[in-house]
Amino acid sequence: MLTPQGGPGHLRKPLKSGAGRDDERVPMRYTLKEIIEITGGKIVRNSPDMVITGVAGLETAREGDLSFAKHPAMFPKVRASKAAAFLLPEPIPDLAKAQIVVEKPFFAMARLLKVLADSRTQRNSGVSSRAVVHNDASIGNHVTIGAGSAVEAGAEIGDDTVIYPLVFVGRNTRIGRNCIIHPNVTIMEEVTLGDRVTVKSSTVIGSDGFSVQPNEKGDLVKIPQAGTVIIEDDVEIGANCTIDRATLDATVIGRGTKIDNHCHIAHNVRIGENSILVAYAKIAGSTRIGKHVTIAEDVGITDNVVIGEGARIGGGSKVYKSVPPGAEMWGSPAKDLLLEKKIQAIIKKLPEWREKLRKLENGQ
Amino acid sequence: MLTPQGGPGHLRKPLKSGAGRDDERVPMRYTLKEIIEITGGKIVRNSPDMVITGVAGLETAREGDLSFAKHPAMFPKVRASKAAAFLLPEPIPDLAKAQIVVEKPFFAMARLLKVLADSRTQRNSGVSSRAVVHNDASIGNHVTIGAGSAVEAGAEIGDDTVIYPLVFVGRNTRIGRNCIIHPNVTIMEEVTLGDRVTVKSSTVIGSDGFSVQPNEKGDLVKIPQAGTVIIEDDVEIGANCTIDRATLDATVIGRGTKIDNHCHIAHNVRIGENSILVAYAKIAGSTRIGKHVTIAEDVGITDNVVIGEGARIGGGSKVYKSVPPGAEMWGSPAKDLLLEKKIQAIIKKLPEWREKLRKLENGQ
Amino acid sequence: MLTPQGGPGHLRKPLKSGAGRDDERVPMRYTLKEIIEITGGKIVRNSPDMVITGVAGLETAREGDLSFAKHPAMFPKVRASKAAAFLLPEPIPDLAKAQIVVEKPFFAMARLLKVLADSRTQRNSGVSSRAVVHNDASIGNHVTIGAGSAVEAGAEIGDDTVIYPLVFVGRNTRIGRNCIIHPNVTIMEEVTLGDRVTVKSSTVIGSDGFSVQPNEKGDLVKIPQAGTVIIEDDVEIGANCTIDRATLDATVIGRGTKIDNHCHIAHNVRIGENSILVAYAKIAGSTRIGKHVTIAEDVGITDNVVIGEGARIGGGSKVYKSVPPGAEMWGSPAKDLLLEKKIQAIIKKLPEWREKLRKLENGQ
Repeated sequence: MLTPQGGPGHLRKPLKSGAGRDDERVPMRYTLKEIIEITGGKIVRNSPDMVITGVAGLETAREGDLSFAKHPAMFPKVRASKAAAFLLPEPIPDLAKAQIVVEKPFFAMARLLKVLADSRTQRNSGVSSRAVVHNDASIGNHVTIGAGSAVEAGAEIGDDTVIYPLVFVGRNTRIGRNCIIHPNVTIMEEVTLGDRVTVKSSTVIGSDGFSVQPNEKGDLVKIPQAGTVIIEDDVEIGANCTIDRATLDATVIGRGTKIDNHCHIAHNVRIGENSILVAYAKIAGSTRIGKHVTIAEDVGITDNVVIGEGARIGGGSKVYKSVPPGAEMWGSPAKDLLLEKKIQAIIKKLPEWREKLRKLENGQ
Repeated sequence: MLTPQGGPGHLRKPLKSGAGRDDERVPMRYTLKEIIEITGGKIVRNSPDMVITGVAGLETAREGDLSFAKHPAMFPKVRASKAAAFLLPEPIPDLAKAQIVVEKPFFAMARLLKVLADSRTQRNSGVSSRAVVHNDASIGNHVTIGAGSAVEAGAEIGDDTVIYPLVFVGRNTRIGRNCIIHPNVTIMEEVTLGDRVTVKSSTVIGSDGFSVQPNEKGDLVKIPQAGTVIIEDDVEIGANCTIDRATLDATVIGRGTKIDNHCHIAHNVRIGENSILVAYAKIAGSTRIGKHVTIAEDVGITDNVVIGEGARIGGGSKVYKSVPPGAEMWGSPAKDLLLEKKIQAIIKKLPEWREKLRKLENGQ
Repeated sequence: MLTPQGGPGHLRKPLKSGAGRDDERVPMRYTLKEIIEITGGKIVRNSPDMVITGVAGLETAREGDLSFAKHPAMFPKVRASKAAAFLLPEPIPDLAKAQIVVEKPFFAMARLLKVLADSRTQRNSGVSSRAVVHNDASIGNHVTIGAGSAVEAGAEIGDDTVIYPLVFVGRNTRIGRNCIIHPNVTIMEEVTLGDRVTVKSSTVIGSDGFSVQPNEKGDLVKIPQAGTVIIEDDVEIGANCTIDRATLDATVIGRGTKIDNHCHIAHNVRIGENSILVAYAKIAGSTRIGKHVTIAEDVGITDNVVIGEGARIGGGSKVYKSVPPGAEMWGSPAKDLLLEKKIQAIIKKLPEWREKLRKLENGQ
């Protein structure tokens, strides 16, 4: 992946000073023909050899960009856009610009974005000579391990997995196939990750859970955590998250669950399949969360409660009690969503109530 | 700790794909006799040579596991449990399974957990040839420094301390004896850690405090921070925490204080001994916190206030004023706990109040 | 910066056990004459050769320290202080201690602090032989790159920039001149940083934004993010922050904006010049924030809203709607500051209201 270079500074080309508008696109270079191989659809106008140099929204697009409209209602914005080509649900006959007509332009664009995003990660680059992999670790086929990463004894890395530079993989930890582990991630000892798991930078998996108790002198004594963490297949974990090791058995993140940045999953928590945790979700110890649950940003859930399948918890809520399946909750403490909305509407009117109450007291 | 291995991928044994139930235990292998040496107590039934392969709660235990019951009230769950052996406060004569009878089963289990948890960290492994330790750093006896860690000039690492891989220890920073510094921790320059301090991954100690001021042109100018950080003995700091450097003298974390993940201690803060900060506690600049204080999850405390000894602040509170010793506070803004509970009970009834008020206004 | 040292432990001098009061100052050694060269002003009393060994506030100062008073009102505290010398706005004739008289003592002290703080970072140390810099990266003049840092192909590092150890700089990422990138920072691929940018430890720039959508089977599918991040000149980003990559074009942090620890800037967000984000500020996707905006600690702002120039959002607020320029907002949900203060005052009195309402209902 990297070749060592330890000499004095060297300069490939003059450096521009500062950041400017030129930096607002990740450079790309695809012909319309190549794009259609990714997105599907048919070209209307222009040659298949036309070169596209960026992707952008209709309003921020510039010359050379490809943009898209989900719906004919957006066609006035398409006409006003500076983009060179568009993914559209139907052609605009009088528009003298390249058009790719495709059934679902948003999903077509998403397919293209996936190709662009995937190309950032260099796969199948082998184990860097600057990585430190223990002889007693098992490394699958086509694995990439970047410079500086440390993989300890007994660890297993599955086929096609990419470990970026500066990652720590502790003893006996197992990482499945086709995973991507970003730089500066820490995965402590004896932890298991399934296949196709993504873990973003500065996230910590398998740190021991927080559990303290005062002794007879009033000094705080730590209760050790001897369990593990299981991350099932297809889980994505954002940057700067913490997923703590269980006291006895396992903290479990269910298959397909997606976790945003800055989230905290405490010891013994179990989260079901395909749940969503938005940024700063904080789940206290031993709480169970069902599948298809949505936990919005900055929600706190107390320890030892159960959040039922399909429940939805609104942003900033503090949940102190179990939540039944399918319930929608909001507020701090969390209440039924409709009740909380009613209460918030009333709270805004409390200054008016004060006047009413005064009048009533004065017999008016 | 690690031996370098830079060749092509090699495979020790076939990799299982994905994560499954088999991963819910950290493998262990102790005879009952060996366990009793750790936990104390007496064996009832079964041979001392019986092998225990895991520890678990009564309900999640499987064949081969050791479990425990704090109290005879839990004995029905003991009878229903699949565990092979139990730590119990008194024997269950008609239970045909191994029993270790011990005065306080929870503390006996905690002693065993400590042995298991401690065994994860490899001690006394020496300085890795892949660590980068400055010639002018002082390294004690039996110190472990993992691959990739950088220890700069003038730094001191005390006897028996373990520095995992990928840790940064800045110039003139002193780390005491028997500390454990997890991977990807950053400890900036001129900082002091006492003995038996644990710092978990991605935590940052000694970053400069946040202090800005607009100049005459309206541009923001940073006020530099020239102080330091002192972490006293027996402190534990969770993952993804930040403890900022003081402006002039020191940010201080008192002896025995335990800090959970994602906490933020701003510049000039002083925290007393044996206080607890649960996840996402955020303490703003120059605030003083006494000893034996409990700050629950997601509490924010404003700058320049004093939190008295033994005070307890409930989860999610925002504290804008000093808190007297021993006080219990909750809410946002924080109020006396009982007042806040009263208010929350009323708030839930505000929709009913609205009806009452309407009736009163209509003279009903 | 560092020379490798892989042998057994060696000890420069006996290690003190534990942390003590001696550690509350970062050691310094300047004569009054040298200090005056930095701060300006004139010496009253004492010789210019007097040696100053620390800086401190009036109350915590010790022998050998320099302290300061902004205003003559603080002179009684100056007289009571143990400091050896003072920065003062006017002389105190009967005080038999060294005094430096300067127009604005606070700014004079800030100039000295800047010199002290800057001296922590070692500049112009070259590229460590233990850094891993790709041959196809461009490194400016007088650049420092610390041990273990990985700089990938196509990356550019501007003149005089300091990259601490254990930093990841992804492919084609551009870092301007005179930047300081702290240890364990991750800057992903294709990202641009301007000049004089500071990024503190464990911060992640250019991780892909959080965007998921259920497919027809109910499994969550990630929407890829193909855009970039632009950090303009003179931005400071605290420790443990995340700044996510845009979906199509760029997430932008405007010139001079200062961001505290634990903040989260989601995909497509644009922040104007010279705004302040205090700790745990969380800005959801595609929101636009004007210039000179102040966002206090632990504020959450929802997606797709606009925060007008010069707006001020109080601590802990949750903002669900756009905020006009210059507005002051507080609360959850955020309301006009004065309304929120009124409401909070009323809420504290709700238990009294309950009594009043009971009396009215009983016809009293």
